[in-house]
Amino acid sequence: MPKKGIIERLNAGEVVIGDGGFVFALEKRGYVKAGPWTPEATVTHPEAVRQLHREFLRAGANVMQTFTFYASDDKLENRGQTLKFSGAQVNEAACDLAREVANEGDALVAGGVCQTPSYLSCKSENEVKAIFKKQLDVFMKKNVDFLIAEYFEHVEEAEWAVQVMKTSGKPVAASMCIGPEGDMHKVSPGECAVRLVEAGAQIIGVNCHFDPLTSVEAVKMMKAAVEEAGLKAHYMVQPLAYHTPDCNCQGFIDLPEFPFALEPRILTRWDMHKYAREAYTAGIRFIGGCCGFEPYHIRAVAEELASERGFLPPGSEKHGAWGAGLEMHTKPWVRARARRDYWESIHPASGRPKCPSLSTPVGWGVTKGNTELLQHREATTTQEMQQVLERQKKAKSSV
Amino acid sequence: MPKKGIIERLNAGEVVIGDGGFVFALEKRGYVKAGPWTPEATVTHPEAVRQLHREFLRAGANVMQTFTFYASDDKLENRGQTLKFSGAQVNEAACDLAREVANEGDALVAGGVCQTPSYLSCKSENEVKAIFKKQLDVFMKKNVDFLIAEYFEHVEEAEWAVQVMKTSGKPVAASMCIGPEGDMHKVSPGECAVRLVEAGAQIIGVNCHFDPLTSVEAVKMMKAAVEEAGLKAHYMVQPLAYHTPDCNCQGFIDLPEFPFALEPRILTRWDMHKYAREAYTAGIRFIGGCCGFEPYHIRAVAEELASERGFLPPGSEKHGAWGAGLEMHTKPWVRARARRDYWESIHPASGRPKCPSLSTPVGWGVTKGNTELLQHREATTTQEMQQVLERQKKAKSSV
Amino acid sequence: MPKKGIIERLNAGEVVIGDGGFVFALEKRGYVKAGPWTPEATVTHPEAVRQLHREFLRAGANVMQTFTFYASDDKLENRGQTLKFSGAQVNEAACDLAREVANEGDALVAGGVCQTPSYLSCKSENEVKAIFKKQLDVFMKKNVDFLIAEYFEHVEEAEWAVQVMKTSGKPVAASMCIGPEGDMHKVSPGECAVRLVEAGAQIIGVNCHFDPLTSVEAVKMMKAAVEEAGLKAHYMVQPLAYHTPDCNCQGFIDLPEFPFALEPRILTRWDMHKYAREAYTAGIRFIGGCCGFEPYHIRAVAEELASERGFLPPGSEKHGAWGAGLEMHTKPWVRARARRDYWESIHPASGRPKCPSLSTPVGWGVTKGNTELLQHREATTTQEMQQVLERQKKAKSSV
Amino acid sequence: MPKKGIIERLNAGEVVIGDGGFVFALEKRGYVKAGPWTPEATVTHPEAVRQLHREFLRAGANVMQTFTFYASDDKLENRGQTLKFSGAQVNEAACDLAREVANEGDALVAGGVCQTPSYLSCKSENEVKAIFKKQLDVFMKKNVDFLIAEYFEHVEEAEWAVQVMKTSGKPVAASMCIGPEGDMHKVSPGECAVRLVEAGAQIIGVNCHFDPLTSVEAVKMMKAAVEEAGLKAHYMVQPLAYHTPDCNCQGFIDLPEFPFALEPRILTRWDMHKYAREAYTAGIRFIGGCCGFEPYHIRAVAEELASERGFLPPGSEKHGAWGAGLEMHTKPWVRARARRDYWESIHPASGRPKCPSLSTPVGWGVTKGNTELLQHREATTTQEMQQVLERQKKAKSSV
Repeated sequence: MPKKGIIERLNAGEVVIGDGGFVFALEKRGYVKAGPWTPEATVTHPEAVRQLHREFLRAGANVMQTFTFYASDDKLENRGQTLKFSGAQVNEAACDLAREVANEGDALVAGGVCQTPSYLSCKSENEVKAIFKKQLDVFMKKNVDFLIAEYFEHVEEAEWAVQVMKTSGKPVAASMCIGPEGDMHKVSPGECAVRLVEAGAQIIGVNCHFDPLTSVEAVKMMKAAVEEAGLKAHYMVQPLAYHTPDCNCQGFIDLPEFPFALEPRILTRWDMHKYAREAYTAGIRFIGGCCGFEPYHIRAVAEELASERGFLPPGSEKHGAWGAGLEMHTKPWVRARARRDYWESIHPASGRPKCPSLSTPVGWGVTKGNTELLQHREATTTQEMQQVLERQKKAKSSV
Repeated sequence: MPKKGIIERLNAGEVVIGDGGFVFALEKRGYVKAGPWTPEATVTHPEAVRQLHREFLRAGANVMQTFTFYASDDKLENRGQTLKFSGAQVNEAACDLAREVANEGDALVAGGVCQTPSYLSCKSENEVKAIFKKQLDVFMKKNVDFLIAEYFEHVEEAEWAVQVMKTSGKPVAASMCIGPEGDMHKVSPGECAVRLVEAGAQIIGVNCHFDPLTSVEAVKMMKAAVEEAGLKAHYMVQPLAYHTPDCNCQGFIDLPEFPFALEPRILTRWDMHKYAREAYTAGIRFIGGCCGFEPYHIRAVAEELASERGFLPPGSEKHGAWGAGLEMHTKPWVRARARRDYWESIHPASGRPKCPSLSTPVGWGVTKGNTELLQHREATTTQEMQQVLERQKKAKSSV
Repeated sequence: MPKKGIIERLNAGEVVIGDGGFVFALEKRGYVKAGPWTPEATVTHPEAVRQLHREFLRAGANVMQTFTFYASDDKLENRGQTLKFSGAQVNEAACDLAREVANEGDALVAGGVCQTPSYLSCKSENEVKAIFKKQLDVFMKKNVDFLIAEYFEHVEEAEWAVQVMKTSGKPVAASMCIGPEGDMHKVSPGECAVRLVEAGAQIIGVNCHFDPLTSVEAVKMMKAAVEEAGLKAHYMVQPLAYHTPDCNCQGFIDLPEFPFALEPRILTRWDMHKYAREAYTAGIRFIGGCCGFEPYHIRAVAEELASERGFLPPGSEKHGAWGAGLEMHTKPWVRARARRDYWESIHPASGRPKCPSLSTPVGWGVTKGNTELLQHREATTTQEMQQVLERQKKAKSSV
Repeated sequence: MPKKGIIERLNAGEVVIGDGGFVFALEKRGYVKAGPWTPEATVTHPEAVRQLHREFLRAGANVMQTFTFYASDDKLENRGQTLKFSGAQVNEAACDLAREVANEGDALVAGGVCQTPSYLSCKSENEVKAIFKKQLDVFMKKNVDFLIAEYFEHVEEAEWAVQVMKTSGKPVAASMCIGPEGDMHKVSPGECAVRLVEAGAQIIGVNCHFDPLTSVEAVKMMKAAVEEAGLKAHYMVQPLAYHTPDCNCQGFIDLPEFPFALEPRILTRWDMHKYAREAYTAGIRFIGGCCGFEPYHIRAVAEELASERGFLPPGSEKHGAWGAGLEMHTKPWVRARARRDYWESIHPASGRPKCPSLSTPVGWGVTKGNTELLQHREATTTQEMQQVLERQKKAKSSV
């Protein structure tokens, strides 16, 4: 019996749970190099990639994204990875691994493309589209279930990707790595959304770069604009698992802690319950994660939405809801933590007396083919909040 | 050609790198339940356990500890796990997995036992020793390379474990989960150390419960006392990967964030460099990790001590030292982070404006068979620091 | 030779510096009781009130506000202060003290009224106006230079106050204790401003309840609305000397630290430089302070605007600009702090490891005659920031 | 009827409350220049000095210290203040002001000397003593009630001061600005104490440089050593009103926030309750304050010890114990703060998301005539705590 497709599920109002962040998780496990961030591990260490797919499946994910982030030929070449394997090899292995694990449960395989060096170095539309086409050829050969064009900072490139994907006849999702301020040319989330739907995407949203609640906010802006334009779409969100209230428009890339000192910002499983609820309430039905999301984060999303979905994920056999597993702890004061309100209201300490709560982002604004360092002058928090207000107001007013 | 044994390595002055924390890592991956914390995954999900062993091997570990934490029969029974498999099955599977991966590199297999419910419920010395003997039988059958009695809060039980392990003729390491204040009866680290060496342990140290630098401090106290007593030993340390300057004598168990909101306390890889250097300088040569340690944390230990060891771990093929992987990043201000002093001096923000730096531990002091909740009255930081001073001074003066 | 009046000064484009917060400063000195906050010290301890006036004059203030806050008959009665003296006595003594010190320098005397219990308990317009009239009678008898109706949470009551004050023929300033969200009925700052100008106020602005940069933001909204309405006014701002980025619409009253644990929030003199510059840049020319402002805070405002005003305040004889007084310190590393960029960029530590950066306000929204406790459910920071965004966007969109 | 002398009071077991910090309080009021910190305001602005004396008297102080800090001839000359007035003029005016206010209540006048530039520049014992003698001559002429030699970083200079003061026949108190690590030559608090008692001081203790609880700890070390030596003394403590858990041996001078960004560290009145209780419990009976102490801080000390003393200070007429003054507040959630446990357990937020809890002191160790900058290498908190432990253990072991 064939599985229900992504669009059928969303049309039926089902909650579809995405997977978490392969690049960061596998970096910590030793299989991806921070900096290049390329996914040649699909060929060199398939067992590690397979295991991570399995953990997300077990955590409740319905989508196995092929581990093809930054696997376009131009990126792999750029990063010196094509000396050993062709781009097709990396992409094919990724499809096989995703399919193998998807078949172990109720998950679909999504072939993924993302932004390219070709676009950033001002290559032509045809050249950029040719890059996407190569990856698409693999996805078609391997017969993935649907396609995701994700992690785009420029709506124009995202449109091109959607247009290429669209030629396949498969359902296409498009997700930008932007916040409420919009893309790198300050195109608002609303305008991005409308353009992506017009380009042919059936599911739109954001991924990476911002924390869950900021990302949900951006998708809400997308939804409002799409509805106002009289269009229709489904919505997805796959944010960071890091608290980033201090980001500028470039998201966590510009935080001084990126990428090697983000630990204190990692969300707890309880933060994930809030995120899942917030996303669901906003009308988003494809809810997953990006960098920082470990399997237990996805499981928390699945547990929060268990009543809406009607079931718990397999991984919950190893997890007591809201700390229930502590009920038999030897120490009575630890047993006392086996309750929802304890974890729901905790404000965890950092254990780091020299660390502040917020950072000052460095670097501000990047335009196509023209990266420019705008060292951000330090300012008081309130002032910055006002600036954020202003910027976001502008972003919103352009909707 | 047989591998060099643990004692030969340590006698030769080699740095032996331990693995990280299986219980916590596999909890996040979905295979261990927080609360019971038992390792039945060796039977139910061997691929997940094997994969984690491999990641630590790749990160530079020379020791594959059998995943037999809390795998004594009394604990498994207590936690309802013996309905499905016998204790022997769990322990045997653990040995097989550790051996399989150890054979893939230069690592030894260490059979591990830890504290038992039997001791805490005041069973006799014979009864407690019988529990340890059962696990030892498996370790002998599977011919592990050496034995570790670890995670003991009471030195008496640790002595019993060492005495049992000692009967095997294999090298025995003994590690307590204590800090500078000593065990739950306030037996100082120094006295614990002397008693464990006298019981037959050739390697002694501490694991779990406290952050790296506090743990190193406790081992230094052990070393000083052993030397003062005219005895000889090797030293090991396998601490938490969490910052816990605010602990009481019970360690991170009593922190309000334990075990589900410890995220902001996770050490960065750069913190691990400091830890490895500190441990090495203190004369400790078996350096590993416990709860919270992910593969990249162990890799950072191996990278810090690369010149002492003469080589980098395999996993460093996917890691540029001190952020070197960022040298080719598209954004110039991110490229500017590809240098040691940047990461060495960073004080990362928590991204959590409502979170303080320190917590107030709840629960204080546990004595054998008599758990007692001593709600700790809140006090100012300075006062608490003074108390810590006092307590630690007392602990030290008893050395 | 008579002094230039307040309107002449503002018409000439001069910067007029206000004084600081008498109620809080005298509470710390022992002459005002927190809770009632009434100013009977004008009669009982005139030397203490006179001294504080002198310190603000010396710090650069051009306005001596009569210490008549909460000195309306209904408030004094309510607080049990009319047993000993009549309201007229308190108000007259306040006028005498302000005049005595104003005559020692280039300062004007401003008679001040503020919101009344009568309004909050739903007395009629006539009754409330009669209360204001009584204070005005004293101000006319004592011939103050101009009038300030300040600290109003409801624009309606502020209008009534202005209408009464207006009958005197003296210049009238009106200042509300609101932030960008507007008054307690959510009347936006812009609408409040237009109504106050239409009621006859020549100078409008905000005081108390919010930190300097938030208050400047609110006055900017006022200014924009007044200009859009084709009206004319001068602008004033007299904010808190506390950092309050975490306030709700009620300002610092709802912060859990109010009023006895606000210390960690106190602005430094360097924060005041930023405030003064921000206010000046926004076109505000009457710049002073409210609760928390000590004389050195006002001096910092005067020093920041010294080039615009053409002179330093008398108190600067005891202050080296930007830390210059440290140039001769015995310790070289303290001498190294005698420079502007050091103090401009410092992020001072709290010395309090258990204290977070932000609090959760308790209490939300107060409507006339109907105080209602809306316990604010805890939420993550980002979510709250989004709420603030939403609220402020609404406030702005109603301009 | 003559007042009871200081020694009679202490012999009778009475609590004697000191005053607060004139230098810092008058700097904020505009009468002392930070950097030189000299007290010529006694001549130029006597009303400001008199008012501050009155506020401390009203807050409960029994001791009016002459405002003669840094009023030795060599210091005044050094700071360019002797062009306008002689040192004798400054000192005489200080005595007159202290006496005038002391006569308004139950307070004694204490003539104060402190460390001199002559000592730091290696002048001979005779030369340094001649400097102290000049101030003593004024104190004898003005017939102060007793003498305080305070703010000494080197015990040798403190001994010389005591020896000079002792020639007067007046009771002599000696107070050093040190913490548990001891003086600038690492002479422990215990040894300092014994030497000062042997030099003739009847009251010994510490003032300035460290926060209250650290200072109490240092005095406890003094007391233990004096008792162990079979000597007798009374004890005093006059600490900072700043939280400084992150200090090195030089105290708050070496904190990067000194002296212009200490605001977030200011103690609340509730912190003062804890301090007063701690000092009293330690057997200290002369309890006052130094830099940062405002009148309300001294009042809090007097309120905490009201039952021991048998009365409240006059200033408590304007203060409800433990927030009782809020009982009639209009807002119910503010009324709910009118209770002891609310304020006793509050951990106030800083309102500053970019500010950490602790700083890294800069500058380390100063020896006579040889100031040396030891830039303190940044380290993790735990490591630093260990260092503090070590240092303090050494300081203690030398007792």
